[in-house]
Amino acid sequence: MSELSFPLRIGIAGLGTVGSGVVKLLQVNGGRLATVLGRPIELVAVSARTRSKKRNIGIEGIAWMDDPRALARRPDIEVFVELMGEADGLAKAAVETALGAGKHVVTANKALLARHGRELALLAEQHGVTLAFEAAVAGGIPVIKTIREALVGNEIVRVYGILNGTCNYILTQMQEEGRSFAEVLSEAQALGYAEADPSFDVGGHDTAHKLTILACLAFSTDIAFEEIHREGIDTITPEDIEAADDLGYRIKLLGVALKTPGGIEARVHPAMVPKHSAIAEVSGVTNAIAIEGDFVGNLLLVGAGAGAAATASAVVSDIADIARGPRSGYPFILPARTLKPYARATLGLHQGAYYVRMAVYDRPGAMAAIASRMGEQDISIESIVQRRPRSALPGIGARLAPGELAPLVMITHETTEAAMRRALAAIEADGKVSGRPQMIRIEKL
Amino acid sequence: MSELSFPLRIGIAGLGTVGSGVVKLLQVNGGRLATVLGRPIELVAVSARTRSKKRNIGIEGIAWMDDPRALARRPDIEVFVELMGEADGLAKAAVETALGAGKHVVTANKALLARHGRELALLAEQHGVTLAFEAAVAGGIPVIKTIREALVGNEIVRVYGILNGTCNYILTQMQEEGRSFAEVLSEAQALGYAEADPSFDVGGHDTAHKLTILACLAFSTDIAFEEIHREGIDTITPEDIEAADDLGYRIKLLGVALKTPGGIEARVHPAMVPKHSAIAEVSGVTNAIAIEGDFVGNLLLVGAGAGAAATASAVVSDIADIARGPRSGYPFILPARTLKPYARATLGLHQGAYYVRMAVYDRPGAMAAIASRMGEQDISIESIVQRRPRSALPGIGARLAPGELAPLVMITHETTEAAMRRALAAIEADGKVSGRPQMIRIEKL
Repeated sequence: MSELSFPLRIGIAGLGTVGSGVVKLLQVNGGRLATVLGRPIELVAVSARTRSKKRNIGIEGIAWMDDPRALARRPDIEVFVELMGEADGLAKAAVETALGAGKHVVTANKALLARHGRELALLAEQHGVTLAFEAAVAGGIPVIKTIREALVGNEIVRVYGILNGTCNYILTQMQEEGRSFAEVLSEAQALGYAEADPSFDVGGHDTAHKLTILACLAFSTDIAFEEIHREGIDTITPEDIEAADDLGYRIKLLGVALKTPGGIEARVHPAMVPKHSAIAEVSGVTNAIAIEGDFVGNLLLVGAGAGAAATASAVVSDIADIARGPRSGYPFILPARTLKPYARATLGLHQGAYYVRMAVYDRPGAMAAIASRMGEQDISIESIVQRRPRSALPGIGARLAPGELAPLVMITHETTEAAMRRALAAIEADGKVSGRPQMIRIEKL
Repeated sequence: MSELSFPLRIGIAGLGTVGSGVVKLLQVNGGRLATVLGRPIELVAVSARTRSKKRNIGIEGIAWMDDPRALARRPDIEVFVELMGEADGLAKAAVETALGAGKHVVTANKALLARHGRELALLAEQHGVTLAFEAAVAGGIPVIKTIREALVGNEIVRVYGILNGTCNYILTQMQEEGRSFAEVLSEAQALGYAEADPSFDVGGHDTAHKLTILACLAFSTDIAFEEIHREGIDTITPEDIEAADDLGYRIKLLGVALKTPGGIEARVHPAMVPKHSAIAEVSGVTNAIAIEGDFVGNLLLVGAGAGAAATASAVVSDIADIARGPRSGYPFILPARTLKPYARATLGLHQGAYYVRMAVYDRPGAMAAIASRMGEQDISIESIVQRRPRSALPGIGARLAPGELAPLVMITHETTEAAMRRALAAIEADGKVSGRPQMIRIEKL
């Protein structure tokens, strides 16, 4: 390996949480890495917004560039590491500059890839350089390498997972402490686990970004981020969590993409998973991704989806792969020009079981009317529970007063989304229920 | 990538379950693989014990070799795929022949690697070829690639997991159905999940083979398979499983290797894990491996640990990596000549909490004597339950007759193995208990 014994020179743009983590990792474990790779990784230059900012890392002796595009062009670097964030603007310009100048690019920028992944992959392929993005999805979990390399012999049929730590933290707290979404969210904000404007996380946008990248990779398609069906967790109530528990489920915000005869189904929404499953026990800010391949079967990866250290581990693995020498391979597995346009499956054709909760006016015939609306759509019911939330129970066996609202929870057998929506619309129109029924998809593991 | 457009020619020795799976995978997904890799994988020649055996795969037009060593020397192959099994004999000879002839080797042979891994790695390094073995540990789970590549920036501090599907199947059945080890084992044998001679699996030997490979890789050391501390699952009773459940644990056969100040602790034994954890929900024949790195934190991989299709997926990922072109890298991450001898930690220094179950003669002072023996060793008790197994309970609150044997279960706080063993030996010597106390380590996740 003597021909590789010269150092791999890199430049890092962005010295926030992840950037500082990468610098630290290279300082702590760089010696061992050099032995493993047969060559040292040398940080030549950095760029960040504010030069004067106090940082916990030593960057003395490393060149400082005010403009990341200038860093991307430096003739003495081989790899441009983009850790600035943002889908457009400087980050995109700098990555394009680097690829155009024949530099390999390593990025943790999920927004950039979700919006411009194919375009950047084309550029990388034109210039014969690597575009690597292990850190862009699920932090320290090596899901990109697993899909690109470990499962390369498989046709991937489904990929799904818990891709947002903030949402999983909130749902876990709601589950464990029986508290409301609003209560747990404000606590999470106070603790710094949720942003002041939480909508990007709790509305499922962040999950949709990551799912876009995973689906492009797994299915060799060019999915537009905006076309992913998206529901957030703000509609989940303690009653849902409690009823799910009673019925043997946990509620998780999942990003799911799968191949169906009608195209690719890509959706982000709260989903129920059997509580005696490994993914159900993924709690707090931890992430998990399941990949289903035609030969490997089901593979589940669980780990830290964010954080300086874990994300740095992923960034460095990409740099290390480049240091090991050139290899064939495309950023999205197949050549970018061959990525198929997104053949979007109609969500109405989604097949699955459903959880439904509604507040039924306790009048004669209400239940029969609901059951007959389900029957009209050929939906059969697996279990049905007329229940009050545990917290509201005055005593076991307590009865409702006539005309009072009775909470009704049911689990259906497998049906289609369209049938389900028609049945619920009819039930609402019949006036037997108060408010809109809650509907949560049950994900078959 | 035009320089790589010529096919990668391979030879496969061994056409059993895994070998047939690999041939099938290449037939089913070979076209896509060729596009992804920029070159086709071409099966040139095969070798197996019996030529006349009926197989479900088409190998017409592929050269047949009676001797795998002759296959390994064929000038028209670049990769020798060894799927014969056995630690020594022909498999070893054929792999050595291939490496010596400058062929890359892909093998699924855990016994071979656990016994001769370092020696074969040296040979591969001398000849500048790859020795790849993803399929040798945990079937379709890409644990080797994850440790070698994805976590290359980390110092690995611990690796542990459920590495034997037969044992996990038996423990899951015992758990779910309250049946005895012997009963479940004979059923598993009838179903083909356990061998006629089950000792290799249930005695922990198979797990120790896989742990040897993982520990060598994770800690750059040359662990001798025989030196791994090993206990099987045959001592686990329904009472243990039931008591574990009551106390919030599940019992799993784990292989564990970790760095300690006193050296590397490597052990295979039944262990308790918190029942609300992802690994506790890994049931049936599924495998799981947790890897703890200084930057990535905890990563858990769950999937099919055996089977033709899943193992073929792993074998093909190794072949595909070779097809992508040469890269730097050593079979065991660091150069084989630098692998350190196994600095074995004394198990007596193991730190952890323990579960203990004993049958105590219900006489005055028995409990006090036991408690004082624990106290003498500075072991403090987290919880203690004097209980009969649920199955034997004539009624809640039933009392023992004086002099009867009372089952006593306790969980200790963290202590050392040596202290624990001294305390239990003293309790046994005191004559307050019948038989040997059961002791199960609690693994901190």
